[in-house]
Amino acid sequence: MPGEPAEKKQLVHHVFFWLKNPDSVADRDKLVEGVKTLAKIESIRKLHVGVLASTEKRDVVDTSWAVSELMFFDNLEGQAVYQSHPIHLEFIKNYSHLWSKVVVYDAAEA
Amino acid sequence: MPGEPAEKKQLVHHVFFWLKNPDSVADRDKLVEGVKTLAKIESIRKLHVGVLASTEKRDVVDTSWAVSELMFFDNLEGQAVYQSHPIHLEFIKNYSHLWSKVVVYDAAEA
Repeated sequence: MPGEPAEKKQLVHHVFFWLKNPDSVADRDKLVEGVKTLAKIESIRKLHVGVLASTEKRDVVDTSWAVSELMFFDNLEGQAVYQSHPIHLEFIKNYSHLWSKVVVYDAAEA
Repeated sequence: MPGEPAEKKQLVHHVFFWLKNPDSVADRDKLVEGVKTLAKIESIRKLHVGVLASTEKRDVVDTSWAVSELMFFDNLEGQAVYQSHPIHLEFIKNYSHLWSKVVVYDAAEA
């Protein structure tokens, strides 16, 4: 079939945010609210907005972040559409004052 | 309904591996093969095995890792089943010589 490869070889975009005020639940919740606005971007196939899970604390587990944004795209073009999308730019404008650090992992299906 | 909340409030478990031999494509592919053996663990709802995507290189994008393992669980119990599962322990025994560093992010749906 022509067109996009549907479920195959999806691209994972996982972003972790550290808050300027790490102890502020209000700031965390506000950022969660902000990340959820991204769901309207049409090239995002799945959006998972996360906060720290209460799994066992082990040395290898990074628990220093506050909010995560996990997205699936069909391909690199889908991710590019997202990066320059007005809703994404609006999100950065309205919520970037809340975070001190961002780390992004972009993974292609192996 | 009793029982597990299906698609709701899933737990995300995302692991990044750095190789002892970062330039070895053979070691990377071997570790990918190892991570794929985990798919048989019954509490894993979705497994995405990743390698570096060829997205735009920006300061915030960490491109130093080699292999990623993204899993969804229904809940903390599902993750606990995974951690102590014989297939997982076998994976660690057979493949841990390949990696130098592991970082884990556990995220609960916000």
